[in-house]
Amino acid sequence: MAPSRLVIDTDIHSSYDPRRIIDFLAEPWRTRYASGNQGPGNLGYWNPNGVMRPDAVTEDGVRVESNPHDLARHFLDPYGIEYGILNPERSLHIGLGTDPDFSAAIVAAINDMLATDWLPADPRYRASITVAPNDPELAAREIQRLAPNRGFVQVLMPSGARMPYGQRYFHPIYAAAVAHDLPLALHPGSEGVGISGAPTAAGYPTSYLEWHTGLIGSYMAHLISMVSEGVFVKFPTLKFVLLEGGAAWLPGLMWRFDKNWKALRIQTPWLERPPSEYIMEHVLLSTQPIEEPENPAELRAILGMFPAEKMLMFSSDFPHWDGDTPDFAARALPGGIRERVLSETARELYRLPAREATLVSGTNGAVVAGTGDE
Amino acid sequence: MAPSRLVIDTDIHSSYDPRRIIDFLAEPWRTRYASGNQGPGNLGYWNPNGVMRPDAVTEDGVRVESNPHDLARHFLDPYGIEYGILNPERSLHIGLGTDPDFSAAIVAAINDMLATDWLPADPRYRASITVAPNDPELAAREIQRLAPNRGFVQVLMPSGARMPYGQRYFHPIYAAAVAHDLPLALHPGSEGVGISGAPTAAGYPTSYLEWHTGLIGSYMAHLISMVSEGVFVKFPTLKFVLLEGGAAWLPGLMWRFDKNWKALRIQTPWLERPPSEYIMEHVLLSTQPIEEPENPAELRAILGMFPAEKMLMFSSDFPHWDGDTPDFAARALPGGIRERVLSETARELYRLPAREATLVSGTNGAVVAGTGDE
Repeated sequence: MAPSRLVIDTDIHSSYDPRRIIDFLAEPWRTRYASGNQGPGNLGYWNPNGVMRPDAVTEDGVRVESNPHDLARHFLDPYGIEYGILNPERSLHIGLGTDPDFSAAIVAAINDMLATDWLPADPRYRASITVAPNDPELAAREIQRLAPNRGFVQVLMPSGARMPYGQRYFHPIYAAAVAHDLPLALHPGSEGVGISGAPTAAGYPTSYLEWHTGLIGSYMAHLISMVSEGVFVKFPTLKFVLLEGGAAWLPGLMWRFDKNWKALRIQTPWLERPPSEYIMEHVLLSTQPIEEPENPAELRAILGMFPAEKMLMFSSDFPHWDGDTPDFAARALPGGIRERVLSETARELYRLPAREATLVSGTNGAVVAGTGDE
Repeated sequence: MAPSRLVIDTDIHSSYDPRRIIDFLAEPWRTRYASGNQGPGNLGYWNPNGVMRPDAVTEDGVRVESNPHDLARHFLDPYGIEYGILNPERSLHIGLGTDPDFSAAIVAAINDMLATDWLPADPRYRASITVAPNDPELAAREIQRLAPNRGFVQVLMPSGARMPYGQRYFHPIYAAAVAHDLPLALHPGSEGVGISGAPTAAGYPTSYLEWHTGLIGSYMAHLISMVSEGVFVKFPTLKFVLLEGGAAWLPGLMWRFDKNWKALRIQTPWLERPPSEYIMEHVLLSTQPIEEPENPAELRAILGMFPAEKMLMFSSDFPHWDGDTPDFAARALPGGIRERVLSETARELYRLPAREATLVSGTNGAVVAGTGDE
């Protein structure tokens, strides 16, 4: 039997039927959305595997992410996941539309759908409040509207963007997030969509392979901007979560950033410490897709170059094509930080009370959650 | 006395008087350039230190990079530099102009100025052929025109770009480079200039600190593109040199790239091996600005995660604000690869014959070049 451990999954993708979203839209958005005009669409990069795991279906052929009970039974149960944070499919690109009122209406409908259909369905679910950054004031209002529902544990934005997120334009979003003690998270997938501009610093790549490999460029640019613009000085309690961007790029970026700051800090007089200190204090990363060097010791060495025990949180990205199961991620992590990465760092960040975790059989190589008496 | 060693510097910036460029221009470019219309200009990010080292002046107050004899006496001599490769100031942005004929004319004039004023002046100088990638056929012709002058040892392009460099549009440049056995190098500084588009995947950052820290995003995007598009399969002898981009980001990018390729390789059927193998075979990096973690062992650990002994070459970036002197770089490098990084890898790449190096006194902490009998 596999060792028991607690698992909090910081990135699970629930899906929805667009017809259900219509129920939560007022006119004229209801008519517009029902016509099939549902936002800026995707960019057209093609994943030859499909983005969704083909095996994530029930015995009856239903996609498991399409309803809360199937997702719980087919993913939370076998892996003994204590909490799973839902970041719904087809929501992030909406904030990159040309019409901010329409964007705000759709993301509000998606959030309402989660609050109605998902959060009450299983005590293990938590969710992100998706906001559309194309109108920061409307995004702030959406945070204020939903924050009283404690099932929502963070604010989520697309990493595709036309401006780096440190810029003052976006600060109303951060003010609302900290007012409600909610972390701010980015999730990739929208780079190059709608008004975001090119997905890389060198323009539009050709293939999904290139696009996906290079996504970290957007993360690096946002992170540099958030620190340089003094967001973490202005909002000292803000936590910034970079979901699904990997971790191996972080130490080198911090070194480069600190070195430049030493020479150029007259440009950021509001920073009282080297950039890396703000990063280590305010930024968290999720594990998936965890880097897999041929020699696993090299990843462990990288994880020793920043405080991974307080910055890194497990995410599965289930049911996406390149997801990592908890047991897979656990094997890649150094033993000394495993427990914190798999559950405790996320528990602290999202203030998730300890629960009597479900003890399940360790089928399919699944990690088994225990109650501590293993 | 400091230990003697050979040094080849792969990135020295000579300057020029724009009035001298006029001598090499035909009409109507001569009139246009003389009017002060000299290309797309820079982007307007401000380095508060100035980009040029203020101390790089002769006793008479002349900038040392402005003529070959002063540069040799004030930089090559004291550091015992056996060869220095010249990448002239204010040349890279020209390839991001809107008018490819004008761009081609200016870069040709700069190249002719180097061939006339610099290469004959000192046997230690070599130079890059700057080309304007906004018309690949004209760029290829410029390579063909200058390749017979063996003082030119590589082709140089800006890393600012509107399209990733692996795309077929650019292949005529690579065909010309390999036909003349010349490596292709990128150099930063033009991200966001002219037609290049935004300098990061998240748009235009605010400050030079941000812009400079994030430059590596452009490098990553070009590198991913070059490999993915099969440039190194189509041109198996092409070497690709990433100047001034640091090195610490490389291992993590190779891991991410290989992992994605395993799942998505149907999109790149021309790749017969994992992306990292093409990178390790075809790509070289220059050292400056070398990353400086608080714990130097961390940089050495990173340099052990790829074959730095054959991929990394010393560069000073002299006389720029953040340059590294040979002795500074030498101290950061593991002893086992130091000699190759400081000279031998560049000697092989650029086919630089061994010379009787100048033995000089080790003033100012300079590295002293010896003849081998130390």
